[in-house]
Parts: sequence; C-alpha cells; structure tokens
Amino acid sequence: MVPGMVAEEKVAMKELSEIISGIKPVDPKWLERAAERQNCLTKPPQSLGQLEDIACRIAAIQETLSPRVDRKLITVFAGDHGITEEAVSPYPSEVTAQMVANFLRGGAAINAVAKTVGAELIIVNAGVAHPIPPVSPLNDHIRSIQKPVRSGTRNFTRDPALTAEEAFSALLLGYDVACQAKRDGVNLIGMGEMGIGNSTSASAIAAALTGSPASAVTGRGTGIDDETRARKLAVVDKGVKLHAFGPDRPFQVLHALGGLELAGLTGLCLGAAVNRIAIICDGFIASASAAVAVTISPAVSDYLFAGHLSTEPGHAIVLEFLGKKPLLQLKMRLGEGTGAALAMAVIDAAVRTFVEMATFESAGVSNKQELSQKANS
Amino acid sequence: MVPGMVAEEKVAMKELSEIISGIKPVDPKWLERAAERQNCLTKPPQSLGQLEDIACRIAAIQETLSPRVDRKLITVFAGDHGITEEAVSPYPSEVTAQMVANFLRGGAAINAVAKTVGAELIIVNAGVAHPIPPVSPLNDHIRSIQKPVRSGTRNFTRDPALTAEEAFSALLLGYDVACQAKRDGVNLIGMGEMGIGNSTSASAIAAALTGSPASAVTGRGTGIDDETRARKLAVVDKGVKLHAFGPDRPFQVLHALGGLELAGLTGLCLGAAVNRIAIICDGFIASASAAVAVTISPAVSDYLFAGHLSTEPGHAIVLEFLGKKPLLQLKMRLGEGTGAALAMAVIDAAVRTFVEMATFESAGVSNKQELSQKANS
Repeated sequence: MVPGMVAEEKVAMKELSEIISGIKPVDPKWLERAAERQNCLTKPPQSLGQLEDIACRIAAIQETLSPRVDRKLITVFAGDHGITEEAVSPYPSEVTAQMVANFLRGGAAINAVAKTVGAELIIVNAGVAHPIPPVSPLNDHIRSIQKPVRSGTRNFTRDPALTAEEAFSALLLGYDVACQAKRDGVNLIGMGEMGIGNSTSASAIAAALTGSPASAVTGRGTGIDDETRARKLAVVDKGVKLHAFGPDRPFQVLHALGGLELAGLTGLCLGAAVNRIAIICDGFIASASAAVAVTISPAVSDYLFAGHLSTEPGHAIVLEFLGKKPLLQLKMRLGEGTGAALAMAVIDAAVRTFVEMATFESAGVSNKQELSQKANS
Repeated sequence: MVPGMVAEEKVAMKELSEIISGIKPVDPKWLERAAERQNCLTKPPQSLGQLEDIACRIAAIQETLSPRVDRKLITVFAGDHGITEEAVSPYPSEVTAQMVANFLRGGAAINAVAKTVGAELIIVNAGVAHPIPPVSPLNDHIRSIQKPVRSGTRNFTRDPALTAEEAFSALLLGYDVACQAKRDGVNLIGMGEMGIGNSTSASAIAAALTGSPASAVTGRGTGIDDETRARKLAVVDKGVKLHAFGPDRPFQVLHALGGLELAGLTGLCLGAAVNRIAIICDGFIASASAAVAVTISPAVSDYLFAGHLSTEPGHAIVLEFLGKKPLLQLKMRLGEGTGAALAMAVIDAAVRTFVEMATFESAGVSNKQELSQKANS
C-alpha cells in the first residue's frame, strides 16, 4: 500500500486487487493449437495475414477451436468534464446530454455502424452533467443505463477530477456491464465514449502513463483552433504536473485526471478480461482508458484488440504503449465506438474463416507441402 | 486504328469502343451536394475520415442523397495459365478446378468473408483447364457460371496468352455479369479471382502498363522459394519484352499476357461503370485487371474502390498507378475477393452513416458553427 493514501482509496485499491486476481493471461497452448488448424485450411499459409493472428487469439481467449463472435455489443459510456471551464472544446457540455439522446433515438454515427456489423448497443450514463432530453419511443435495439456517479468531474487543474471512491464507482459500473454481457452470451465487446472535454482528460492520462510531453499527446479533439489548442495543452501540462502520478499508480492517474466515462471503460476492460470476452478499443479516449486497465493488470492486453488508428496524435502513442497494431486506418476521429464497431467486421471475418473453412483434406484440394513431399519421394 | 492489326483484333476494338462510349464520369455536382449533407450530420466535420469521401462518391455514382449498398455481390472469376509450364507456382493447375469446387461447396475463405458482410457469390469459370470436381448439393447462396472461353491460356513466353477474340470473349463474360447484376438490383460489386499461375500473368500486365521493371512487380504469389521466384521474374521479363505492348494499347497487353479470369474482371469493371455500380478491387491480380480497364477508359476510376493492400509487392505499384488508397491493410494475400469482400463492410458503414444519421437540426444537437455565430452576435 502506498503511504499517504486516504481510507477510501485503500478500500478502492483492495476491491480492485480482488478484481485483478480474476484475470488470467491466455494459454499459449491454445494459440499453438489454433495456429496448427490455420495451416490445414484451404489457403496458402499465412495468406489471411492479420486475420489469422486475430482468430488464433480469439480461440485462445475462448479456449476452443470453434470460437464465436456472433453476439456483439457496443457500449458507449458518457460523462461530462469540469475541465470544460477552461474553454478547451468548441462545443458546450450540453452536447453530451444531447448526443446521449441522439444515441437513444438511433440518429448518431454509432447507431449506423453498429447496424452494419450487427452489434447491440448499450448507452451508459456514467456522469452526464445536464438532463438527457426525453426520448420516446426508445429504440428496441438500444439499451440505456442511467447510473451517473456524479454530475461530471471536477476541474483537474485545481482538484483531483474524481475522488478515489467516485472513480471506483464508475469503474464498477463498467465492470458490471461486462459481467452482465457475459451472462447475456456476448462474445465481443466494443468500447465507445461520449463526453465534451474528454480528449483533454485522455491527453492528461496518456501523458501521465506514457511519460510523453503534453504537446505530443494533445490534439484538436472535435476540431479546435490554434488558440484553443494552446490553452488545452497548458491545461493538460498543469494537470499532469499538479497530480504527479505515473504508471506505477494507474488508478490514481485515472481518478486525478480521468472522466467518469473513462473510468467506466477501464472497468469494462477489466470485466471483459475477467469474463474472457474479447474487447476492442476505439480511438484515443477509449485507448487511454484501456491503457489504464492494462497498466493495472497487464494480462488484460491478451483480451484487447486495437480497432483503428485515429488522427488524434496521442492515439499512436497510446497504441505503442499498449503494443497494439490497429486493425483499421481510415482517418476517423469521432469516438462513440465507431472505429471499434467497424473493426468487429474484421474480427468476424477472421473467426468465420477459421471456423468455417474446409481443410485441404476435407475439400480434396492438393496442398503445397503434400506436393513437395511427393516430389521428394 | 493501330496499323498491323489483324481482322479479329479490329472487331474486338470496335466492340470495345462501343462499350467505352457508355461510360460517363461521375458528376462533381453530386459530390458537392453529398459533401454539404455530410456537414449537417451530428458529428464534428470530417470526423468520419475516409468514410465521408466514400459515401460522397457512392452518392455521386448513384446520383442520389439516399444511396444504398444493400445488394452486395462478390464475383470470383477462375481460369488457368499456360505459363505454369514454366514451373512458376508450387501448386499444380488442378488446384484451380479443386478450389472452384471448394467455392461452390462453401468451404473457401471467400465463402466465410462473403457471409460476414452479407454478400452473394457468383463463381465464373472463364477458362479452367481441368474438370471441376462434382459438387452436390449446390449451396443456395452461390451461383455458378460455367462458360470457359478455352482450357487455360497459352504460355506467354512463346505465344500471346490469348488471341484478341478469346480475350474479348472473356471480357464480355465479365461485362455481362455486371449487366445482369444491374438487372438483379446489385449496388456493390467485389472482384475476386482464382487461377494457379495468375500472379505471374498479373506481374507481366503490371510491368507492361506501369513501365516498372519485372523485379519490382514480381512477388512470391502463394509463397514460392527464391529459386522459383527467380524463374518467375525471368518469365515475366521475357513475356513483357516479347510482346512489347504498353499503356497505349491496354487491350493488347491483356490478350498477350493476361489470363481469362483477368480479362473477365476487366470486363466486369467496364460493365460496372457502364451500369453505374460501385466496384471494389481485391488484391494484386484483380487490381491488375482493373488497371487494364481504367487504362482502356479512365472514367472507370470513378466507380472503382481499392479494397485492401496486399503484401504482394506489385500491388502497391498498381494502386499507385490507379491513384487509389486501399481501405484495408491487413497483410492479406489470398485473392478470391477476400479483401474486396471485407472492404464492403467499410463501404456499408460509410453509406449507412451518410443516409441514416440525424442532422444537428433534426436531433436538437448544438452545432459548433452555430455556437461561434452566437458568440459573434
């Protein structure tokens, strides 16, 4: 236990260590078994490229040579940020609530992308500051969880954004979503978020965890001008220096700098790993949340896929920190889980080819190895 | 008309010019109208990256702000190659026929990927040299067209691979598939191919069209060793020099060096453009076929998307020649249309977001521009 911790922080750390104890890395033997199957399928060896590695990892996560990713879930965590007081975003925080209503009504980008890949959608209000405009009727395919931990975070240039207790409550919210998903039979989860100001929070977390300067991890978010970006950079720098936590104390980084939706996503990652469900990062903000989870428990990495590479400059830095190669590079920078959702199609194709393809033997197709053996005999 | 042409070549060129006369570039006004709509949707401007450009182009192709890509078709053209006499592939040409049976039975990679994206599948025998092993029962979702123009091509290091008449017959086969697709309501086509030896043919076409040396466009295909690759490179070089056609005579490049399945795909591209259907390139071989089509009629480019970047070294060169940026980069190198099929998910998401998303006004979400106007007023 780190000296100087307050009582509530000690409780959070104890409960967190119980969660962590349930996370096991995948067994390399399953990776080997899956790779053997790949080499029997009717295709030149390795010709499906990254799809082959993806399928092997999903097989190892699910511990079967017949893995499935047919129950897909996108979770969009929403929260507001006290840091918007510093005028770091061109949009007012009211937009977070307005966009939550847009998600529930089915009118946002994530609704369209989720439909494309056949994923269900859960919108989790982890701490939206303004009232969500009424939506009726609710779309059948979208579930709503309204459990705001508090009305947005505090301004992290003055105070910790969240207390340890608040951050842990938000984290548990995400953890519980993953556990419920397991009970529902979900086998692939995508991480999404919405929160005006949350790229500022993600930049501060990325700087604190990776040790990168604020300038390297602070971008234009929804599209800010030079003046606003300079202000955002100063804010990130100030926050990181004020709280002075590093990768040795990832939970403290999260509660001092992070948003409620980011803490929710960190908990979602931990919960996915505990429940052996593959989980896909979205853009910069989701990846910063995943980086906290992986720093808390490195075995989480085995369950985590990088959905895409955002144009937000900090994203590449966080993905490098995570050691992950993004599945898509389409210059997207929207968040909401759009990149994670689209990457589900890649993972789906990877798993389907692995499970459904014929072997050289079953299809009566001549294999290269077999031929060279014949030639040598 | 080029002097020295034989009579049958003149006939083919005349019929080809009739096809070409039906191809119109997309109207830039539709691109502008679509871009205006993108800016009204509930997302920061340009935040969907390449998806936004894709949707605008599909809108311009279909000349509507409500485009659809809900009828997807993957076409796999199969053919054999006389050049396999030169031992350029580790697999015997029997594998082409065996794989066609595997496609019809539903056991190949393309079957699994087509299912992932909800695409229908047509397998076109444009010139398979060996008997297709019997398949029964035929899978309901897969159609088979058995119209081989001839039993594989000739060895292009000695003779033209095809006569002009044969090449044009194969081209028409593809053209007709696109016209039938239009009648069936198909609104997105993916190009796929199967043919032992066809990466050698594609390398020769790529060298002839782009002027690149054989060494730059000749790769390892299904996975050949150094010795076989050296032989393949010499074969490509010999063929290109023997027939000596360049980008000013693309149809002649195709019939001298190309395969029956490549000619089919060239015709498919021309037919897609005539019928205003968006068409997606697959890997190196499909892209070489598309390069012939675009060189024959540059407006074809407006209808063409690059599905993915293969690890085959010539592919990047052909895509650069085409001026296309690939949608996916997953180190795939299988062909069969697998990369084109997977890219359909990206195009689907692009079109769905464009059509289904709410506008700032309809969703009651505050827009950035509106706010800055308020601030200035």
